Order: sequence, then C-alpha cells, then structure tokens
Amino acid sequence: MPISWTHRYAQRTQRMTSSAIRELLKVTEQPDMISFAGGLPAPDLFPVEEMAVAADRVLRDFGPQALQYSTTEGYRPLREWLANDTSTSGLAVSPENILITSGSQQALDLLGKIFINSGDRLVVEAPTYMGALQAWNAYEAEYLAIPADEQGMLTAELEPALRVGPKLIYSLPTFQNPTGVTLTLERRQRLVELTGRYGVPIIEDDAYGQLRFEGDSLPSLLALAGPASTNGTGAYGGHVIYLSTFSKTLVPGLRLAWIVAPVEVIRKLVQAKQGADLHSATFNQMIAYEAVRDGFLRQHVPLIQKVYRERREVMLAALAEHFPPGVHWTRPDGGLFLWVTLPEGVNAAELLPAALAAKVAFVPGAPMFPNGGGENTLRLNFSNAAPASIREGIARLGRVLYEKMGVTQAVPI
Amino acid sequence: MPISWTHRYAQRTQRMTSSAIRELLKVTEQPDMISFAGGLPAPDLFPVEEMAVAADRVLRDFGPQALQYSTTEGYRPLREWLANDTSTSGLAVSPENILITSGSQQALDLLGKIFINSGDRLVVEAPTYMGALQAWNAYEAEYLAIPADEQGMLTAELEPALRVGPKLIYSLPTFQNPTGVTLTLERRQRLVELTGRYGVPIIEDDAYGQLRFEGDSLPSLLALAGPASTNGTGAYGGHVIYLSTFSKTLVPGLRLAWIVAPVEVIRKLVQAKQGADLHSATFNQMIAYEAVRDGFLRQHVPLIQKVYRERREVMLAALAEHFPPGVHWTRPDGGLFLWVTLPEGVNAAELLPAALAAKVAFVPGAPMFPNGGGENTLRLNFSNAAPASIREGIARLGRVLYEKMGVTQAVPI
Repeated sequence: MPISWTHRYAQRTQRMTSSAIRELLKVTEQPDMISFAGGLPAPDLFPVEEMAVAADRVLRDFGPQALQYSTTEGYRPLREWLANDTSTSGLAVSPENILITSGSQQALDLLGKIFINSGDRLVVEAPTYMGALQAWNAYEAEYLAIPADEQGMLTAELEPALRVGPKLIYSLPTFQNPTGVTLTLERRQRLVELTGRYGVPIIEDDAYGQLRFEGDSLPSLLALAGPASTNGTGAYGGHVIYLSTFSKTLVPGLRLAWIVAPVEVIRKLVQAKQGADLHSATFNQMIAYEAVRDGFLRQHVPLIQKVYRERREVMLAALAEHFPPGVHWTRPDGGLFLWVTLPEGVNAAELLPAALAAKVAFVPGAPMFPNGGGENTLRLNFSNAAPASIREGIARLGRVLYEKMGVTQAVPI
Repeated sequence: MPISWTHRYAQRTQRMTSSAIRELLKVTEQPDMISFAGGLPAPDLFPVEEMAVAADRVLRDFGPQALQYSTTEGYRPLREWLANDTSTSGLAVSPENILITSGSQQALDLLGKIFINSGDRLVVEAPTYMGALQAWNAYEAEYLAIPADEQGMLTAELEPALRVGPKLIYSLPTFQNPTGVTLTLERRQRLVELTGRYGVPIIEDDAYGQLRFEGDSLPSLLALAGPASTNGTGAYGGHVIYLSTFSKTLVPGLRLAWIVAPVEVIRKLVQAKQGADLHSATFNQMIAYEAVRDGFLRQHVPLIQKVYRERREVMLAALAEHFPPGVHWTRPDGGLFLWVTLPEGVNAAELLPAALAAKVAFVPGAPMFPNGGGENTLRLNFSNAAPASIREGIARLGRVLYEKMGVTQAVPI
C-alpha cells in the first residue's frame, strides 16, 4: 500500500517550516534583481587566492590526514588558535572550552538538542535572528520576547522574564541580526549581572562583532562573565556560551564556526555532535587554520570593514533621499544589516510583491518576532550589493513605498 | 550564583552518550597500536592529487561562488550527477529526489528529526550500525531488533515486528556495519514486499555497497522498490529512503553524503537541514563534483576493492592461523568489516583491556545490539591497516584470546 508520509512525520515538524528568507533568496537569484534580502557577505572580498594557497599547502603537507575522518571536538591546532584568540587579560579560554561546528547554525541546533525540552521557555530579543528560531522550533521551544530599542535589548524588562524560570537567554549584542543595533556597555553589564544572579545561561551570538567600522569596541558578554568565573583549571567556566564564526570574516562556504563554553557543556555538545554529523570537515578546518594562523584576518577584516562602511553610507544616504517621511531606520556601527520601521499599519510583507515586481528584494521583519508583531518592519542587507546597486535598489524601494503608502513623492526641481 | 548545568540538560540527553568507539579511537592513536577498531578507509588510497587538482580548478573557475553560502538542497550539478548515477532502467531518480548531507551521520540525524517522536519504535537489525542508534537515541526512539545470520536480517521474523506498527525500518543490506554480511536477493525481495504491504518505510543505508570485491552485485532495496512506485513525474516515489556517501569511495574528510527519497520527504528534510546547518559546505560539494564528474570513481573504486580484498584475505588467513577453536567469523564479500563470535560466556568487552595492553584494538559488539546481547561478539576493521600489521595484530589478539579463554595455544612444530 502507498506510504502516507504526512502521518509519519514527528510532532516537532509541525513547527518546522522552510525559512521565508531562504525561499525568497531563490527568487532573488534573477540577474536583474537587486537584493537586500540575504545575509550574504560581499563575495568580491573573499580571499580566493589565499584560500587556494591554503588548500594546496594543506593537501601537500597533510594530504591523507586532511581527507580522513577526525575528532568530533575539531582540529586541535585550530582550537588552540581560537582559544588564544578569544582569551584576554581577564578571560582564560582553553582549547577544551572550544567545539568546532558546521557553521553557527549547527551551534544553535546542538544547543537546542542538549538544552531544550518541549515547552521550555527561552528569553530572546524581539526581533531576533530567525535561524535561531528555526533551530529551536524543532525542539518545540516557547519564547519570552524582550523588546529592544536603539541601545539593544531593554534590560529593564528582563527581570520579570528571568523570574519565570527560562531555560536560557539568547542575545546578539553586537550589530544584531536583524536590527544592526548594539547593546550598550551598561546594558551588557546589567544583562550579565542579572542572568548570573538568576542562574540563567546566556547564549551570546557574536557572528558580526569583528565587523565594526565606527565607534569603540565593547567587551563581549563572555569577557564580562569571564573574570568572575574562571576556576583555577585554566579553562573558562562562566555562564555565557559564546558563538562565533568564520563566515563573515573569512568565507561562509567552508561552514566553520565555533562554540566557547564551560568544559562540561562542551562535553555534552560533543555527544550531540557525534550523533549529528560526527565532525566538521577535516579539510576545511585545516584550510581555515592555515589561512588564519599567521594573522591574515588582521589585514583582511579592516578591508571588509572599509567596504561595508562605504556601503552602509551609501544606503543611509539613499534612504534619506528616497524613502517617504514617517519611515525610520537604524544606523549600525558595524555588521551587515539595518532595520526599517514603516508607519504603523503599513505591512512590509504586503509590500514585497510590488518590490519584487520592481526588481528589488528585502526581508519582512514579522517572522523575526517570535510571538508576533513587527508587521511594519523590514530588514535591509547592505554588505552584498555594490554602491550603485544600493542607490538604485533603494530608489526602487522608495518608489514602491511612496506608491503603497499613498504619499506623493516630492520631485526635486 | 553558579549555574547547575546538569539540571538544565534536556530529557533526551540521558540517552545521548559518547560513542564507545569514538572514545576508543583516541587510545588507538598511539603509534605502536594496531587498530581494527575504527571504520576508517585506507588513507594511502585517498586521491590526494586529484583532490588538489579539483580544489584548484574549483577556486580558479568559481572562486567566490565556491566560498559563498549556497542552497540547502545541495549543489545542483552534483545532485544531477547523483540522480543520473543512481537511476537504472527500472528506477527514475530526479535531482529533486536528492538532498546532499554533511556525511551519512547527518542523514540519520535529519531522518530522526523529521520522523521520530519519543517512544516511536524502529525496526533495526541486531547488531546494527551504532551511529544510527546514537543519532536516534537523541530522539528517544525504541527499537524492535531483528536477528541476522550469514544471509543478513532474518526476514522470516519480520512480520510480527511490522504488525506492531513501527515508524520505520532501518537496514544495511550490503556489507553491513558491523557484520560485513549481505542480505540475499530473496530476502531483499521479501523485505521490500513485506514493508510495502504493511506501509512501513525502509531506510536503506548503503555506505559500503560499491566496495564489492567478490560475487555478483545485488539490486539495492531502492531499485527493488523503484519500478513499482515511480509516478509519472520522472521522480522516484517509493517507500525506500536510500543513503549513500562519498566517505568510502572518495574521501571521508569532505563530509559529503546524500539521501534519495520521495520529493515530499526531501522537502521536509530540507526544512530540518535549514535549522541544522543551513547547507553542506559549498566548496566541498564543488570539489566532489569536479572529482567525480568525468568518471574518476570508475577507475578509483576498483583500486580500493583490490586493496581491501587483499587485506580481507590476509585477515581471514591470520584468523584461521591465530584464533582458538570455537571462535567464528564472517567472510564478507566487500566493505570494511568482519564480525567475530566468541564462544558463549566469553565477554569481548572484558578482553579489551588485555588487547589494548598487547597493543591491538577492536570494538566490542554489545553496544551494536540495541536491546542487549552480543557480549561475546566483536568487530574487526580490515581496511585501515597494512597486511603486515593485520597479521601481527591478529596474532596479538589471538594470544589474548588463548590466554583469556584458558585454551592452550597449539604450537606448530
């Protein structure tokens, strides 16, 4: 008899839906489309030559080893390099604190796997990174959403949520996806102090932190939690679990990221990763190590910062020129995204078909609010398009907005 | 206050334990250890030069694209190549039937994610691949174990298990891990027919099928299910979900495998993979495609077959020479493993410390029986050691067995 697949799927699949963003990205592959939709780094900045040299050297020096199975924890020299790179005068991170993952998305999935029971409540920012919701919906998480302003999560609203007894709290404090906003130092301190007091672990997602092109660096939540909690073993033992990635500083196509966490949490994550994909590709880890070991990122990241800064400037100028009155947007100091708020009652998702018809794409903000809201918001990526395309794309989007919002566009004379 | 991590872990982590095999592999990295423990292909056969050429060509011809994010489904030309390679006169497989995964381990994890509710029963062979149990324990599966003999799963015992209403059935019909045994044609037909009648999907894990060095090829369960169920769309629509991998024919360190399944199942798996790791590494997929597109495997796989056949011969001869009477083993026609059964009451796990002290490693069989049993069994890998090491390692293991079994070793005069 024919199989009824639908009746065989697990309960959790009811909350697993294909990301609207990723479905959208397929449409935006049309060559004449100007897309602000994806979270794509600028491919023209990828260090192709350095990658080719690194791949060649790895295969020449370690051929069979680079192509063989390897340990779940990750390539030891890379873990040592990352531990050293993450440690500061106040924060001791050991290689035992580090697990290499297949992109940050896998880090989110493995954390969901080891922590989340069906119905567990997680505190998240609203809006938050949709990929995290996608990972954790599969474990049937519920969300306590904390609103944010231009200084990041409203930590003043945190305590009632912590009193509810959430399993953990997820924050993107630096150049947040989707808003581009950065949590201030005061709020960082407050967040680390409050969660420490309530004994609620923080997952700090720092995918974008190195891409600062304006203002002074702020300490990570990890660094703020670190000094109080190292424990004589030379390893980190605090309550912040920190995620970072090579996807935005080196290249995303290798699928390499890492988790910094207390040793006992890493041990549990290793068990989960054994069942999930055994280990991340040996070859890729060795290439990444070869590429970064001699400080390549110290010269490469400033180049990315410079280009993204210029693209942000172009986008901000174009927004000011082309968007109707009553529309607001953030002014990020780094990262890949800015966030647009339309007047109340203007639905961004309903604008999308007209935008796509005008050959410009964005991502509506509503799916990034775990408990609803944000229908009048949208995310714009400024890293992936050239300045001329940004100007043209924002002009197109401005025309769509003027038309849909029923505002007469001021024509310069 | 300090975090109590132990109390935060999800219920499912109680069944997630670190694989004994993988823990063991760490000990076996000692240089003077002869290891039959891992499932490692022979690294001396890895096509390092071809990989280097492919990596270089991919970066030269497609640099930025190879290093950028890409679609969850996988690199389209690779999916087309795989669809074409899998299709036969009686089986139409379309690229839409294929999902690229980060190793077969991820295929097992994603299948668990979309199918298994806590307490769901899965029919498996006893013994079966431990990595599958590891993946599915995390979804709190229960197992109905079907015993096997030298012709594979005892399909005569299948019907009572199917009547219980299992969620799915998992089989490694060809050169099974761990036993090396191959399911006969008659039992294959019976398995496909019976599961079809009861409407229970089969997961066919075919990691080793191409490594046949003796006897005639048998049709895959996929091929047996295929003709009856293609449905006019040019896509496969049967009740067998088929897994294969590049890990044993090309290299494992790229972490590339694939699933062949009905289009609607692929769609659900894509949603799960989006949350799990977004996509498998673009660079790796393009390298694999570059390496295999012109038929490289048709010349390379016979080389692997030849070497593994020789190693199996050496191991079989050494077993006959060095193992005590009353010990039995399988004689696989392909693959990487053979399976040893000690006399009743001799515990393989208890032999392990003495074996490791004698600098030879194997994997005890008991953890491969999901519901207990098999204490007197062990798995030997013959692909990873050179012939001289195989002879020496089996001699060492024979001495341990003679000693522990209290048998006086016959000394040739």
